[in-house]
Amino acid sequence: MSATNIVWHKASVTRMRREELNQHKSIILWFTGLSGAGKSTLAHAVEERLFQMGCRTFVLDGDNIRHGLCADLGFSEEARTENIRRVGQAAKLFLEAGIMVLTAFISPFRNDRQRVRSLVPHGEFIEIYCRCPLDVCETRDVKGLYKRARAGEIKEFTGISSPYEEPIAPELMVDTEQLTIEQSVDAVINLLFGRGIIKTAA
Amino acid sequence: MSATNIVWHKASVTRMRREELNQHKSIILWFTGLSGAGKSTLAHAVEERLFQMGCRTFVLDGDNIRHGLCADLGFSEEARTENIRRVGQAAKLFLEAGIMVLTAFISPFRNDRQRVRSLVPHGEFIEIYCRCPLDVCETRDVKGLYKRARAGEIKEFTGISSPYEEPIAPELMVDTEQLTIEQSVDAVINLLFGRGIIKTAA
Repeated sequence: MSATNIVWHKASVTRMRREELNQHKSIILWFTGLSGAGKSTLAHAVEERLFQMGCRTFVLDGDNIRHGLCADLGFSEEARTENIRRVGQAAKLFLEAGIMVLTAFISPFRNDRQRVRSLVPHGEFIEIYCRCPLDVCETRDVKGLYKRARAGEIKEFTGISSPYEEPIAPELMVDTEQLTIEQSVDAVINLLFGRGIIKTAA
Repeated sequence: MSATNIVWHKASVTRMRREELNQHKSIILWFTGLSGAGKSTLAHAVEERLFQMGCRTFVLDGDNIRHGLCADLGFSEEARTENIRRVGQAAKLFLEAGIMVLTAFISPFRNDRQRVRSLVPHGEFIEIYCRCPLDVCETRDVKGLYKRARAGEIKEFTGISSPYEEPIAPELMVDTEQLTIEQSVDAVINLLFGRGIIKTAA
Protein backbone atom coordinates (compact mmCIF):
# COMPACT_ATOMS: atom_id res chain seq x y z
CA MET A 1 0.00 0.00 0.00
CA SER A 2 1.12 3.56 -0.48
CA ALA A 3 2.62 5.13 2.57
CA THR A 4 0.16 6.95 4.80
CA ASN A 5 0.57 8.38 8.25
CA ILE A 6 -1.78 5.80 9.60
CA VAL A 7 -0.10 3.05 11.52
CA TRP A 8 -2.18 0.10 10.52
CA HIS A 9 -2.85 -2.56 13.12
CA LYS A 10 -3.43 -5.95 11.64
CA ALA A 11 -6.24 -8.02 13.06
CA SER A 12 -7.87 -5.05 14.76
CA VAL A 13 -11.17 -6.94 14.99
CA THR A 14 -10.50 -8.97 18.09
CA ARG A 15 -12.46 -11.78 19.59
CA MET A 16 -13.48 -9.48 22.41
CA ARG A 17 -15.02 -6.96 20.01
CA ARG A 18 -16.87 -9.76 18.24
CA GLU A 19 -18.24 -11.07 21.53
CA GLU A 20 -19.40 -7.59 22.42
CA LEU A 21 -21.20 -7.26 19.08
CA ASN A 22 -22.76 -10.70 19.49
CA GLN A 23 -23.74 -10.17 23.12
CA HIS A 24 -22.51 -13.59 24.13
CA LYS A 25 -19.18 -15.29 24.58
CA SER A 26 -17.77 -17.75 22.11
CA ILE A 27 -17.19 -21.32 23.19
CA ILE A 28 -16.48 -24.82 21.93
CA LEU A 29 -19.18 -27.32 22.85
CA TRP A 30 -17.61 -30.69 22.18
CA PHE A 31 -20.18 -33.50 22.01
CA THR A 32 -18.68 -36.98 22.29
CA GLY A 33 -20.21 -40.43 22.48
CA LEU A 34 -20.96 -43.61 20.59
CA SER A 35 -22.48 -43.66 17.14
CA GLY A 36 -26.23 -43.39 17.70
CA ALA A 37 -25.91 -41.73 21.11
CA GLY A 38 -27.56 -38.59 19.75
CA LYS A 39 -24.60 -36.21 19.51
CA SER A 40 -25.55 -34.59 16.22
CA THR A 41 -29.26 -34.47 17.07
CA LEU A 42 -28.54 -32.82 20.40
CA ALA A 43 -25.97 -30.41 18.92
CA HIS A 44 -28.46 -29.22 16.32
CA ALA A 45 -31.24 -28.95 18.89
CA VAL A 46 -28.99 -26.86 21.13
CA GLU A 47 -28.03 -24.74 18.14
CA GLU A 48 -31.70 -24.12 17.30
CA ARG A 49 -32.37 -22.96 20.86
CA LEU A 50 -29.28 -20.73 20.91
CA PHE A 51 -30.14 -19.27 17.51
CA GLN A 52 -33.60 -18.38 18.77
CA MET A 53 -31.87 -16.53 21.58
CA GLY A 54 -29.97 -14.53 18.96
CA CYS A 55 -26.64 -16.33 19.36
CA ARG A 56 -24.15 -16.89 16.55
CA THR A 57 -23.56 -20.61 16.30
CA PHE A 58 -22.27 -23.31 14.01
CA VAL A 59 -22.25 -27.10 14.09
CA LEU A 60 -19.30 -29.10 12.81
CA ASP A 61 -20.21 -32.73 12.22
CA GLY A 62 -19.52 -35.59 9.87
CA ASP A 63 -21.89 -34.14 7.27
CA ASN A 64 -19.91 -30.97 6.68
CA ILE A 65 -16.43 -32.19 7.62
CA ARG A 66 -16.00 -35.66 6.21
CA HIS A 67 -17.00 -34.57 2.70
CA GLY A 68 -14.95 -31.40 2.88
CA LEU A 69 -12.05 -30.51 5.11
CA CYS A 70 -11.31 -34.16 5.87
CA ALA A 71 -12.42 -35.76 2.61
CA ASP A 72 -8.88 -37.11 2.19
CA LEU A 73 -8.99 -39.08 5.45
CA GLY A 74 -10.11 -42.63 6.12
CA PHE A 75 -11.09 -44.25 9.41
CA SER A 76 -7.89 -45.83 10.68
CA GLU A 77 -6.83 -44.79 14.16
CA GLU A 78 -4.25 -42.44 12.67
CA ALA A 79 -6.76 -40.90 10.26
CA ARG A 80 -9.33 -40.45 13.01
CA THR A 81 -6.75 -38.69 15.14
CA GLU A 82 -5.93 -36.34 12.27
CA ASN A 83 -9.66 -35.84 11.66
CA ILE A 84 -10.18 -34.74 15.25
CA ARG A 85 -7.07 -32.57 15.13
CA ARG A 86 -8.42 -30.67 12.14
CA VAL A 87 -11.89 -30.40 13.66
CA GLY A 88 -10.26 -28.98 16.77
CA GLN A 89 -8.31 -26.44 14.75
CA ALA A 90 -11.42 -25.48 12.77
CA ALA A 91 -13.35 -25.12 16.02
CA LYS A 92 -10.61 -22.87 17.35
CA LEU A 93 -11.02 -20.59 14.32
CA PHE A 94 -14.76 -20.32 14.98
CA LEU A 95 -14.03 -19.60 18.64
CA GLU A 96 -11.72 -16.78 17.55
CA ALA A 97 -14.48 -15.57 15.22
CA GLY A 98 -16.81 -15.08 18.18
CA ILE A 99 -19.02 -18.05 17.34
CA MET A 100 -20.44 -20.70 19.64
CA VAL A 101 -19.22 -23.78 17.82
CA LEU A 102 -20.74 -27.18 18.49
CA THR A 103 -18.89 -30.30 17.34
CA ALA A 104 -20.51 -33.70 17.01
CA PHE A 105 -17.98 -36.47 16.47
CA ILE A 106 -17.59 -39.81 18.19
CA SER A 107 -14.04 -38.67 19.06
CA PRO A 108 -13.41 -41.93 20.91
CA PHE A 109 -9.85 -41.29 22.04
CA ARG A 110 -9.23 -39.42 25.27
CA ASN A 111 -5.89 -38.09 24.05
CA ASP A 112 -7.43 -36.60 20.91
CA ARG A 113 -10.06 -34.76 22.95
CA GLN A 114 -7.45 -33.64 25.45
CA ARG A 115 -5.34 -32.24 22.63
CA VAL A 116 -8.22 -30.10 21.42
CA ARG A 117 -8.95 -28.94 24.96
CA SER A 118 -5.34 -27.83 25.34
CA LEU A 119 -5.61 -25.66 22.20
CA VAL A 120 -7.81 -23.10 23.89
CA PRO A 121 -7.80 -21.23 27.20
CA HIS A 122 -9.20 -22.95 30.27
CA GLY A 123 -12.99 -22.99 30.33
CA GLU A 124 -13.50 -22.47 26.61
CA PHE A 125 -13.73 -26.15 25.76
CA ILE A 126 -16.87 -27.74 27.16
CA GLU A 127 -16.92 -31.50 26.86
CA ILE A 128 -20.43 -32.93 26.71
CA TYR A 129 -20.61 -36.66 27.02
CA CYS A 130 -23.69 -38.08 25.32
CA ARG A 131 -23.93 -41.25 27.36
CA CYS A 132 -25.95 -44.14 26.02
CA PRO A 133 -25.35 -47.89 26.49
CA LEU A 134 -23.92 -49.67 23.48
CA ASP A 135 -26.85 -52.06 23.22
CA VAL A 136 -29.28 -49.14 23.04
CA CYS A 137 -27.25 -47.44 20.31
CA GLU A 138 -27.02 -50.75 18.50
CA THR A 139 -30.76 -51.30 18.74
CA ARG A 140 -31.44 -47.82 17.35
CA ASP A 141 -28.84 -48.30 14.58
CA VAL A 142 -30.28 -45.35 12.65
CA LYS A 143 -27.67 -45.55 9.92
CA GLY A 144 -27.38 -49.34 9.84
CA LEU A 145 -23.73 -49.04 10.76
CA TYR A 146 -23.73 -51.43 13.73
CA LYS A 147 -25.24 -54.17 11.60
CA ARG A 148 -22.51 -53.67 9.02
CA ALA A 149 -19.84 -53.54 11.71
CA ARG A 150 -21.08 -56.79 13.26
CA ALA A 151 -21.00 -58.34 9.80
CA GLY A 152 -17.37 -57.27 9.53
CA GLU A 153 -18.09 -54.87 6.68
CA ILE A 154 -16.77 -51.90 8.66
CA LYS A 155 -13.41 -52.23 10.33
CA GLU A 156 -12.43 -50.41 13.51
CA PHE A 157 -15.98 -49.42 14.37
CA THR A 158 -16.23 -47.72 17.75
CA GLY A 159 -17.83 -49.93 20.40
CA ILE A 160 -17.56 -53.07 18.25
CA SER A 161 -14.01 -53.39 17.01
CA SER A 162 -12.45 -50.18 18.29
CA PRO A 163 -12.58 -48.73 21.81
CA TYR A 164 -14.58 -45.77 23.06
CA GLU A 165 -12.71 -44.10 25.87
CA GLU A 166 -15.28 -42.48 28.17
CA PRO A 167 -14.60 -38.94 29.39
CA ILE A 168 -13.28 -38.96 32.93
CA ALA A 169 -14.41 -35.47 33.91
CA PRO A 170 -16.65 -34.00 31.21
CA GLU A 171 -18.18 -30.60 31.94
CA LEU A 172 -21.57 -32.22 31.32
CA MET A 173 -22.88 -35.74 31.01
CA VAL A 174 -26.20 -36.16 29.23
CA ASP A 175 -27.94 -39.47 29.59
CA THR A 176 -29.53 -39.66 26.17
CA GLU A 177 -31.20 -42.96 26.98
CA GLN A 178 -33.32 -41.39 29.70
CA LEU A 179 -33.71 -37.72 28.86
CA THR A 180 -35.85 -36.15 26.18
CA ILE A 181 -34.23 -33.84 23.68
CA GLU A 182 -35.82 -30.88 25.42
CA GLN A 183 -34.43 -31.90 28.79
CA SER A 184 -31.00 -32.45 27.27
CA VAL A 185 -31.05 -29.05 25.57
CA ASP A 186 -32.09 -27.41 28.84
CA ALA A 187 -29.13 -29.00 30.61
CA VAL A 188 -26.70 -27.56 28.06
CA ILE A 189 -28.32 -24.13 28.07
CA ASN A 190 -28.27 -23.93 31.85
CA LEU A 191 -24.62 -24.90 31.91
CA LEU A 192 -23.85 -22.07 29.48
CA PHE A 193 -25.90 -19.64 31.53
CA GLY A 194 -24.22 -20.76 34.75
CA ARG A 195 -20.82 -20.11 33.22
CA GLY A 196 -21.74 -16.67 31.93
CA ILE A 197 -21.47 -17.64 28.27
CA ILE A 198 -25.04 -16.57 27.56
CA LYS A 199 -27.28 -14.18 29.45
CA THR A 200 -30.50 -16.18 29.63
CA ALA A 201 -31.29 -19.50 31.29
CA ALA A 202 -33.45 -22.24 29.77
CA MET B 1 -33.02 -39.61 22.73
CA SER B 2 -36.30 -40.80 24.11
CA ALA B 3 -39.10 -40.95 21.59
CA THR B 4 -41.20 -37.82 21.39
CA ASN B 5 -43.86 -36.82 18.92
CA ILE B 6 -41.63 -34.09 17.63
CA VAL B 7 -40.05 -34.88 14.30
CA TRP B 8 -36.67 -33.33 14.71
CA HIS B 9 -35.11 -31.70 11.70
CA LYS B 10 -31.36 -31.74 11.80
CA ALA B 11 -29.55 -28.57 10.81
CA SER B 12 -32.66 -26.42 11.19
CA VAL B 13 -30.51 -23.31 11.46
CA THR B 14 -29.90 -22.68 7.79
CA ARG B 15 -27.55 -20.27 6.12
CA MET B 16 -30.56 -18.22 5.05
CA ARG B 17 -31.72 -17.78 8.65
CA ARG B 18 -28.22 -16.78 9.69
CA GLU B 19 -28.03 -14.20 6.92
CA GLU B 20 -31.37 -12.80 7.98
CA LEU B 21 -30.16 -12.49 11.57
CA ASN B 22 -26.90 -10.87 10.43
CA GLN B 23 -28.59 -8.52 7.97
CA HIS B 24 -25.99 -9.25 5.30
CA LYS B 25 -25.13 -12.11 3.01
CA SER B 26 -22.19 -14.37 3.59
CA ILE B 27 -19.40 -14.45 1.04
CA ILE B 28 -15.85 -15.60 0.44
CA LEU B 29 -13.46 -12.74 -0.35
CA TRP B 30 -10.37 -14.43 -1.71
CA PHE B 31 -7.33 -12.13 -1.74
CA THR B 32 -4.49 -13.37 -3.93
CA GLY B 33 -1.15 -11.88 -4.93
CA LEU B 34 2.57 -11.94 -4.32
CA SER B 35 4.14 -11.91 -0.88
CA GLY B 36 4.24 -8.26 0.14
CA ALA B 37 1.43 -7.21 -2.19
CA GLY B 38 -0.70 -6.24 0.82
CA LYS B 39 -3.25 -9.07 0.90
CA SER B 40 -3.36 -9.52 4.65
CA THR B 41 -3.21 -5.78 5.36
CA LEU B 42 -6.06 -5.13 2.95
CA ALA B 43 -8.12 -8.07 4.21
CA HIS B 44 -7.86 -6.84 7.80
CA ALA B 45 -8.64 -3.27 6.78
CA VAL B 46 -11.73 -4.45 4.90
CA GLU B 47 -12.71 -6.53 7.91
CA GLU B 48 -12.41 -3.50 10.20
CA ARG B 49 -14.68 -1.48 7.93
CA LEU B 50 -17.21 -4.30 7.64
CA PHE B 51 -17.16 -4.87 11.39
CA GLN B 52 -17.90 -1.20 11.98
CA MET B 53 -20.91 -1.67 9.70
CA GLY B 54 -22.08 -4.48 12.01
CA CYS B 55 -21.08 -7.35 9.73
CA ARG B 56 -19.93 -10.75 10.95
CA THR B 57 -16.53 -11.37 9.46
CA PHE B 58 -13.40 -13.46 9.81
CA VAL B 59 -9.95 -13.43 8.21
CA LEU B 60 -8.12 -16.64 7.41
CA ASP B 61 -4.44 -16.02 6.78
CA GLY B 62 -1.06 -17.58 7.35
CA ASP B 63 -1.05 -16.46 10.97
CA ASN B 64 -4.04 -18.52 12.03
CA ILE B 65 -3.82 -21.34 9.46
CA ARG B 66 -0.18 -22.26 9.09
CA HIS B 67 0.28 -22.77 12.84
CA GLY B 68 -3.00 -24.58 13.21
CA LEU B 69 -5.11 -26.36 10.62
CA CYS B 70 -2.16 -26.71 8.25
CA ALA B 71 0.68 -27.00 10.75
CA ASP B 72 1.52 -30.39 9.25
CA LEU B 73 2.14 -28.98 5.77
CA GLY B 74 5.32 -27.65 4.19
CA PHE B 75 5.73 -25.44 1.15
CA SER B 76 6.21 -27.85 -1.73
CA GLU B 77 3.81 -27.42 -4.62
CA GLU B 78 1.82 -30.41 -3.37
CA ALA B 79 1.69 -29.08 0.19
CA ARG B 80 0.65 -25.63 -0.98
CA THR B 81 -2.14 -27.14 -3.01
CA GLU B 82 -3.36 -29.06 0.04
CA ASN B 83 -3.01 -25.89 2.13
CA ILE B 84 -5.26 -23.98 -0.25
CA ARG B 85 -7.69 -26.89 -0.45
CA ARG B 86 -8.12 -26.86 3.34
CA VAL B 87 -8.39 -23.08 3.45
CA GLY B 88 -11.10 -23.33 0.80
CA GLN B 89 -12.97 -25.94 2.81
CA ALA B 90 -12.65 -23.89 6.00
CA ALA B 91 -13.88 -20.81 4.12
CA LYS B 92 -16.86 -22.81 2.90
CA LEU B 93 -17.76 -23.66 6.50
CA PHE B 94 -17.68 -19.97 7.44
CA LEU B 95 -19.80 -19.18 4.38
CA GLU B 96 -22.33 -21.74 5.57
CA ALA B 97 -22.16 -20.14 9.03
CA GLY B 98 -23.34 -16.82 7.60
CA ILE B 99 -19.96 -15.13 7.93
CA MET B 100 -18.14 -12.88 5.47
CA VAL B 101 -14.84 -14.73 5.31
CA LEU B 102 -11.73 -13.06 3.95
CA THR B 103 -8.75 -15.20 2.99
CA ALA B 104 -5.25 -13.83 2.49
CA PHE B 105 -2.91 -16.35 0.91
CA ILE B 106 -0.54 -16.00 -2.02
CA SER B 107 -2.47 -18.91 -3.61
CA PRO B 108 -0.25 -18.73 -6.70
CA PHE B 109 -1.81 -21.54 -8.70
CA ARG B 110 -4.82 -20.83 -10.90
CA ASN B 111 -6.11 -24.38 -10.58
CA ASP B 112 -6.08 -24.22 -6.79
CA ARG B 113 -8.10 -21.00 -6.77
CA GLN B 114 -10.46 -22.41 -9.38
CA ARG B 115 -11.02 -25.48 -7.25
CA VAL B 116 -12.09 -23.33 -4.29
CA ARG B 117 -14.35 -21.25 -6.54
CA SER B 118 -16.05 -24.41 -7.74
CA LEU B 119 -16.86 -25.45 -4.14
CA VAL B 120 -19.49 -22.76 -3.72
CA PRO B 121 -22.43 -21.46 -5.76
CA HIS B 122 -21.76 -18.94 -8.50
CA GLY B 123 -21.17 -15.44 -7.17
CA GLU B 124 -20.19 -16.47 -3.65
CA PHE B 125 -16.45 -16.57 -4.33
CA ILE B 126 -15.02 -13.12 -4.97
CA GLU B 127 -11.46 -13.19 -6.23
CA ILE B 128 -9.55 -10.02 -5.37
CA TYR B 129 -6.21 -9.71 -7.06
CA CYS B 130 -3.81 -7.55 -5.06
CA ARG B 131 -1.62 -6.52 -7.97
CA CYS B 132 1.84 -5.18 -7.25
CA PRO B 133 5.00 -5.54 -9.35
CA LEU B 134 7.52 -8.05 -8.09
CA ASP B 135 10.27 -5.45 -7.76
CA VAL B 136 8.04 -3.31 -5.54
CA CYS B 137 7.17 -6.27 -3.32
CA GLU B 138 10.83 -7.18 -3.20
CA THR B 139 11.83 -3.65 -2.25
CA ARG B 140 9.27 -3.59 0.57
CA ASP B 141 10.31 -7.08 1.73
CA VAL B 142 8.55 -6.55 5.04
CA LYS B 143 9.32 -10.04 6.31
CA GLY B 144 12.77 -10.33 4.75
CA LEU B 145 11.61 -13.32 2.75
CA TYR B 146 12.69 -12.10 -0.69
CA LYS B 147 16.22 -11.57 0.54
CA ARG B 148 16.29 -15.08 1.91
CA ALA B 149 14.77 -16.48 -1.27
CA ARG B 150 17.38 -14.69 -3.41
CA ALA B 151 20.05 -16.15 -1.17
CA GLY B 152 18.62 -19.59 -1.86
CA GLU B 153 17.57 -20.08 1.75
CA ILE B 154 13.90 -20.50 0.81
CA LYS B 155 13.06 -22.93 -1.97
CA GLU B 156 10.07 -22.55 -4.27
CA PHE B 157 9.41 -18.96 -3.28
CA THR B 158 6.65 -17.37 -5.35
CA GLY B 159 7.96 -14.86 -7.85
CA ILE B 160 11.58 -15.93 -7.41
CA SER B 161 11.78 -19.68 -7.81
CA SER B 162 8.12 -20.62 -8.17
CA PRO B 163 5.51 -19.10 -10.50
CA TYR B 164 2.65 -16.78 -9.61
CA GLU B 165 -0.22 -17.37 -12.00
CA GLU B 166 -2.13 -14.11 -12.32
CA PRO B 167 -5.93 -14.26 -12.16
CA ILE B 168 -7.43 -14.04 -15.65
CA ALA B 169 -10.80 -12.64 -14.65
CA PRO B 170 -10.83 -11.69 -10.97
CA GLU B 171 -13.96 -10.00 -9.65
CA LEU B 172 -11.72 -7.15 -8.54
CA MET B 173 -8.18 -6.03 -9.21
CA VAL B 174 -6.63 -3.72 -6.65
CA ASP B 175 -3.46 -1.96 -7.64
CA THR B 176 -1.78 -1.87 -4.26
CA GLU B 177 1.22 -0.01 -5.65
CA GLN B 178 -0.90 3.02 -6.54
CA LEU B 179 -3.89 3.03 -4.22
CA THR B 180 -4.00 3.92 -0.55
CA ILE B 181 -5.44 1.42 1.88
CA GLU B 182 -8.57 3.57 2.20
CA GLN B 183 -9.10 3.62 -1.57
CA SER B 184 -8.54 -0.12 -1.76
CA VAL B 185 -11.03 -0.77 1.05
CA ASP B 186 -13.58 1.48 -0.66
CA ALA B 187 -13.23 -0.53 -3.87
CA VAL B 188 -13.99 -3.78 -2.05
CA ILE B 189 -16.88 -2.30 -0.07
CA ASN B 190 -18.47 -0.84 -3.19
CA LEU B 191 -18.16 -4.16 -4.99
CA LEU B 192 -20.00 -5.84 -2.10
CA PHE B 193 -22.66 -3.15 -2.10
CA GLY B 194 -23.08 -3.41 -5.86
CA ARG B 195 -23.64 -7.15 -5.57
CA GLY B 196 -26.18 -6.83 -2.78
CA ILE B 197 -23.98 -8.52 -0.19
CA ILE B 198 -24.14 -5.55 2.15
CA LYS B 199 -26.68 -2.76 2.35
CA THR B 200 -24.41 0.29 2.58
CA ALA B 201 -21.86 1.69 0.14
CA ALA B 202 -18.45 3.05 1.11
